[in-house]
Amino acid sequence: MDVMPAAPPARLALLYGTVREHSRRLAAPLSDADATVQSMPDASPAKWHLAHTTWFFETMVLRPNWPGYAVFDESFNFLFNSYYETLGARQPRPRRGMMTRPSLEQVMAYRAHVDRGMAEMLRGELPQPVRELVELGCHHEQQHQELLLTDILHLFAQSPLHPAYAAPAPAPAPALAEAAAAPREVQFRAFDGGIVEIGHAGDGFGFDCEGPRHRALTEPFRLADRLVTNGEWMQFVADGGYRDPLLWLSAGWAAVQAQGWDSPLYWQQRDGVWHGMTLHGLVPLRPEAPVTHVSYFEADAFASWAGKRLPSEAEWEHAASGLAPEASPALQPRPAPDAPGLRQMFGEVWQWTRSPFTPYPRFRPAAGAVGEYNGKFMCGQFVLRGSSCATPEGHTRPSYRNFFPPDARWQFSGLRLAEDA
Amino acid sequence: MDVMPAAPPARLALLYGTVREHSRRLAAPLSDADATVQSMPDASPAKWHLAHTTWFFETMVLRPNWPGYAVFDESFNFLFNSYYETLGARQPRPRRGMMTRPSLEQVMAYRAHVDRGMAEMLRGELPQPVRELVELGCHHEQQHQELLLTDILHLFAQSPLHPAYAAPAPAPAPALAEAAAAPREVQFRAFDGGIVEIGHAGDGFGFDCEGPRHRALTEPFRLADRLVTNGEWMQFVADGGYRDPLLWLSAGWAAVQAQGWDSPLYWQQRDGVWHGMTLHGLVPLRPEAPVTHVSYFEADAFASWAGKRLPSEAEWEHAASGLAPEASPALQPRPAPDAPGLRQMFGEVWQWTRSPFTPYPRFRPAAGAVGEYNGKFMCGQFVLRGSSCATPEGHTRPSYRNFFPPDARWQFSGLRLAEDA
Amino acid sequence: MDVMPAAPPARLALLYGTVREHSRRLAAPLSDADATVQSMPDASPAKWHLAHTTWFFETMVLRPNWPGYAVFDESFNFLFNSYYETLGARQPRPRRGMMTRPSLEQVMAYRAHVDRGMAEMLRGELPQPVRELVELGCHHEQQHQELLLTDILHLFAQSPLHPAYAAPAPAPAPALAEAAAAPREVQFRAFDGGIVEIGHAGDGFGFDCEGPRHRALTEPFRLADRLVTNGEWMQFVADGGYRDPLLWLSAGWAAVQAQGWDSPLYWQQRDGVWHGMTLHGLVPLRPEAPVTHVSYFEADAFASWAGKRLPSEAEWEHAASGLAPEASPALQPRPAPDAPGLRQMFGEVWQWTRSPFTPYPRFRPAAGAVGEYNGKFMCGQFVLRGSSCATPEGHTRPSYRNFFPPDARWQFSGLRLAEDA
Amino acid sequence: MDVMPAAPPARLALLYGTVREHSRRLAAPLSDADATVQSMPDASPAKWHLAHTTWFFETMVLRPNWPGYAVFDESFNFLFNSYYETLGARQPRPRRGMMTRPSLEQVMAYRAHVDRGMAEMLRGELPQPVRELVELGCHHEQQHQELLLTDILHLFAQSPLHPAYAAPAPAPAPALAEAAAAPREVQFRAFDGGIVEIGHAGDGFGFDCEGPRHRALTEPFRLADRLVTNGEWMQFVADGGYRDPLLWLSAGWAAVQAQGWDSPLYWQQRDGVWHGMTLHGLVPLRPEAPVTHVSYFEADAFASWAGKRLPSEAEWEHAASGLAPEASPALQPRPAPDAPGLRQMFGEVWQWTRSPFTPYPRFRPAAGAVGEYNGKFMCGQFVLRGSSCATPEGHTRPSYRNFFPPDARWQFSGLRLAEDA
Repeated sequence: MDVMPAAPPARLALLYGTVREHSRRLAAPLSDADATVQSMPDASPAKWHLAHTTWFFETMVLRPNWPGYAVFDESFNFLFNSYYETLGARQPRPRRGMMTRPSLEQVMAYRAHVDRGMAEMLRGELPQPVRELVELGCHHEQQHQELLLTDILHLFAQSPLHPAYAAPAPAPAPALAEAAAAPREVQFRAFDGGIVEIGHAGDGFGFDCEGPRHRALTEPFRLADRLVTNGEWMQFVADGGYRDPLLWLSAGWAAVQAQGWDSPLYWQQRDGVWHGMTLHGLVPLRPEAPVTHVSYFEADAFASWAGKRLPSEAEWEHAASGLAPEASPALQPRPAPDAPGLRQMFGEVWQWTRSPFTPYPRFRPAAGAVGEYNGKFMCGQFVLRGSSCATPEGHTRPSYRNFFPPDARWQFSGLRLAEDA
Repeated sequence: MDVMPAAPPARLALLYGTVREHSRRLAAPLSDADATVQSMPDASPAKWHLAHTTWFFETMVLRPNWPGYAVFDESFNFLFNSYYETLGARQPRPRRGMMTRPSLEQVMAYRAHVDRGMAEMLRGELPQPVRELVELGCHHEQQHQELLLTDILHLFAQSPLHPAYAAPAPAPAPALAEAAAAPREVQFRAFDGGIVEIGHAGDGFGFDCEGPRHRALTEPFRLADRLVTNGEWMQFVADGGYRDPLLWLSAGWAAVQAQGWDSPLYWQQRDGVWHGMTLHGLVPLRPEAPVTHVSYFEADAFASWAGKRLPSEAEWEHAASGLAPEASPALQPRPAPDAPGLRQMFGEVWQWTRSPFTPYPRFRPAAGAVGEYNGKFMCGQFVLRGSSCATPEGHTRPSYRNFFPPDARWQFSGLRLAEDA
Repeated sequence: MDVMPAAPPARLALLYGTVREHSRRLAAPLSDADATVQSMPDASPAKWHLAHTTWFFETMVLRPNWPGYAVFDESFNFLFNSYYETLGARQPRPRRGMMTRPSLEQVMAYRAHVDRGMAEMLRGELPQPVRELVELGCHHEQQHQELLLTDILHLFAQSPLHPAYAAPAPAPAPALAEAAAAPREVQFRAFDGGIVEIGHAGDGFGFDCEGPRHRALTEPFRLADRLVTNGEWMQFVADGGYRDPLLWLSAGWAAVQAQGWDSPLYWQQRDGVWHGMTLHGLVPLRPEAPVTHVSYFEADAFASWAGKRLPSEAEWEHAASGLAPEASPALQPRPAPDAPGLRQMFGEVWQWTRSPFTPYPRFRPAAGAVGEYNGKFMCGQFVLRGSSCATPEGHTRPSYRNFFPPDARWQFSGLRLAEDA
Repeated sequence: MDVMPAAPPARLALLYGTVREHSRRLAAPLSDADATVQSMPDASPAKWHLAHTTWFFETMVLRPNWPGYAVFDESFNFLFNSYYETLGARQPRPRRGMMTRPSLEQVMAYRAHVDRGMAEMLRGELPQPVRELVELGCHHEQQHQELLLTDILHLFAQSPLHPAYAAPAPAPAPALAEAAAAPREVQFRAFDGGIVEIGHAGDGFGFDCEGPRHRALTEPFRLADRLVTNGEWMQFVADGGYRDPLLWLSAGWAAVQAQGWDSPLYWQQRDGVWHGMTLHGLVPLRPEAPVTHVSYFEADAFASWAGKRLPSEAEWEHAASGLAPEASPALQPRPAPDAPGLRQMFGEVWQWTRSPFTPYPRFRPAAGAVGEYNGKFMCGQFVLRGSSCATPEGHTRPSYRNFFPPDARWQFSGLRLAEDA
């Protein structure tokens, strides 16, 4: 982790407290059983997210740096290590759901125990590398906050009961609803080509893979000023988009056939009406809202169908530079506001880019365990940019590089079109 | 279900109450999470067992026969149907663990609701077929009580923490322990051949597949008077039993290689001492106790190694006729008592026979949903006889035919040797 | 191999010569490529059959018993051992098709080399055990002759060109054809129950698993006097037989769904007419001919649909005792002759019985390599009785026990119905 | 296919004849069986390569453009279409080895038939687009010539006999051998960063994915002047390279474990000496020769172990610009000559780059069937540069982009190290 200048002491304790409190709030609607079950190998139980993020602070920060700290339970190192080969053996990822013990309540006690240790520690002066690790741990926990939500959604989507994680948002007022149903025309904004600078600039936090900041060469391009909508995706479906191999990458077409895709994950028709499973349960889809839960393969096929392409990450970041990221108050992506400008860059859905996740020039993983954070995943994944309705506040910036394999669909992942100018 | 003369009214209410209360007691040590997770496709969550047995009474007994009964929750028919094609679509078996809702508490409320309906119904006169269904439902629930225990053991065995379902039994007094460590010599008891009668005789309850009672031809044979022990199995392991293909059926050897078997399920060595995962957690194995958690393939290979064979089910039942089944007070199989006689026929471990599970002469499945109870499984399974330490009281009889595929190991399954006379 | 009194010297040389010549004739229509490719793990290349049967004589007979014999190629022991753990490592079964070398021509040279050795050896006096091994080797080769044909049919069925192994048989004369199209009504012949004797009697050759001859108990039953026909199977298909789970064993229904069965293997509709892939290529099905290429699961489901059942092997053998087996001159099963009597017991299709393949009372595998012949397969298979159009002359007898897993379809396997009397 | 200015008429006929003749020569050592078997889903039978390349000319060139041409066999369109969805249904790729018919001889007759048609056609004037298609067909066949060799090597490596495709090359003279055994020290040559031009320039043939020529930004870097050798790889193995997860990409480590990699494909130890399966059979490895048959994952792990990295494709192409590609006369990669300069860029092994295979700026697939040539594979693959000892003469150029998935090992794939300057 090539961490950037760390936060000053008081801000660090504040950051820590805020992040940890947010996790607690996210866990509140969940029962012990909800928090324990693993719905697929790629997803983790909520309880595991809550414990693993805590283990991160215990193992990376407290154990090596805070002599008075008493380890909560030695067995937890095996249980809650994610993928750090440096830190010993661990419960295999696909079997995280076998751990009915410790209970959610015990995990919460674990969190409180570590929080007490951290609070003591953060009261004093800390060396810069430790402050950096604490800050990293906070951003690490924020990543898991988003995963907790997408993993719970995946779990609840497996249930015949379609439970809601949260009460449905109040319906929009009729007038607004009508207006929204006809989303404003998409506009393509032109950008000149040339050498641009991208990557994390050094002030504030950034993950190692966001740097080093470097020059990139772009050709002139145009970028859609809003996201692709559910309504547009319905047209793609109706036009046979999922049945025409010529629109798809070869591996994408294989996925369509092997997994029987005929619409985004969580879509289903009920009495002729498209519904989607959401954190509010199974609800009718709003045509004007951004499409979500599509894979890279689907995003790429849609772009081909539309005669466009996906942006590269350099193009996206260049276009986003100067925009102020905002977090969403909702748990579902919202329609674009009817106002000009490059909209929905942050806070609705992650946006697939055409860029494979590769190291930036002169990127080097850090030494030690945190060096395993990102670098070893730089193969077989595509970069998504922006942030989603599930991304916690303070975890969004233009240089952020999210990444998933091209067939992943359970994140809040959508798309924005681009084209050569 | 070719059910035998059903119990008289008062006894039926008593039976119902006793069985239902026993399930509640079995569930008591489990958390919501313990009761929800499915550890493999062949196992079911405890919550599912508790709800499915209740659904059986609701669907087979109350709905069609008790007009005033109000269905607890219509969605439960989809959730808790097991395999009755006649009764509609259902949650796929391998995905029973996805149902974090309803909670264990709600399932207990469901049980109470159905119990109230049943109590009312059982107060009055009931037609014979309905009484038979109630009795069937009770024996059905007893089957699931044993599965609940073996499934929980399997789940807890997946946990790095090796949790105990129940407090460990008190250790035997030193003198007893010593005596037990040297189990008495096995004796083979001789039986004449000839035509014998086997199958359920008609008084008391029996499952459809236990009948009709019929003649069977046996050749003279000899049967071991006790079960094979852990100590004997350790010799088999030490002698390379798991590495010599000539001892194994071809499909058994394939299972050894594909699944990496080198000892019974749940055995592991710790510091050179064999331990076994039990309902009391991970404990050192007692050499004089019966071996358990072995597959048919292993039992057959052991018998080859020992120069013996497994008994047929006709031989076993003939030898057991006249014995009074007893239930075990323990949750683990116990060493044979040091006394002559055919011992351990019931209450310790199910005993693999060499008999594939096939229909008896003139067997016909019943009409309707209960006709799916056993007949459709008469392929690819072997019969086990006796009963185990997990079998509830009142659920044991000499004609009982338990059956599992030849590679199943998670039941309390062991063996008793036989040979031609 | 508990081989029965072996053939006298002159007859043995004659048997050997006849069997070996028949293999050569079977190979004649095949190219090097035809003889090399393996179409599925359960099938073997024709070249492998030709070489493996030769290896059997070389390894079991010549090497240990004929000092002057020079081994043809030491590497062939690895290449052409089938499953004899006693005889060393071998090419894994699913990868037999990787051996493009030796060529078919070289395999034929191998055959000639071994034939020369055998001819010399058979000229003299031989000890009884050696004579028995030679006889076993001949019957072993006859088994592979049938497999060679069914494996080639499976291979050719994978080809988009549907090649014919042999020229089509001449069409039946119009008058005959018409008569045949309406097969005579099936009759059920009654048999008394009681103790019958079955198993190989001791004169002439029999495989180890056919003995010992022993008593079996049967209940009164009735047996169809002809096989089930294509026309009857078409009715089963048309009546939704492949879509009704209640007709199927549980494992059978799983196979229907997993493998997408909707008709027998090799059936396909072309312009509304049912065709079948045969050794004469893809041809229209004759409704009056016996159905073939059905699994045990399908045979059992058909019997349920028809309100009947499959016979046990004791019933079948009892009914067949006294019948003189005849080999078929055709490569396809033929319609039943329009004449009374128990017809089509031999020479058309193997007939599934309801009997799992288990050891007869007092069966013991022989010592040494031949002890691996049959005993280790006594699990997970069902017995078929009779013989088929692909069975070579001289390889048929009432006590013959063929066996395959319940989902196997590529043999000439059909059925004959039975019922309780 | 965005084909570049096509060759003039006479040169085109010459090119066509030369390419076709080379295929014939490559097929000469193969039997019908050798040419038919498919050793894995990723490989194709030699016969299929010979027929498919012919089908390409028949379908893309003759049928639409040469009215007098008589199609050889209509069924071949199904048999020999590779992946062109535009051109109809086809034999599924993993089942290409099921086609024992047509025979190799018939495929050669097919080739002759199409060659006659092409010869007639090429005698006259042809419109530019047709000339371009002919040229594309020639380069397409050259690609399959290399695959024919690598697929045959893979097939022969499955055989316990390790057959040789070609007679072993004469051993090097002793003096030379000694010299070679100590390969000269590797040198890293420095290159300035900046904007460079890469991509096919427009004169001579290039595949669509090699263009458009465009600007790319590079940082200063250094490139090894020779390939990594077998001897260096042996050190990597001896140092535990295959057992240290920290050296590997996460997906690479998963491949190591799932596939049991512990050395390059085709390496095996015999009596303590590393051997490799080659087109000359199984031979001892020469330490000074380039390592080959390593995956991207292995190449990347090796580079990590060596403290270096793989070059990007822009770096590689920039360094190679101006070099004259040479084809190799050998069937195995040869040691680097003991002379200064950037050596072994072409003709020994393909060199993995760190660049995922993505479209160049402004790349657009061509309309029609040839548009499926490359574009749809731009996902999940990495670019290899240079050429190999199996690449036919005239098929090499600095802009050539070969690509394979990161776990592919059966190509002649090796590596050259790079580092940041």
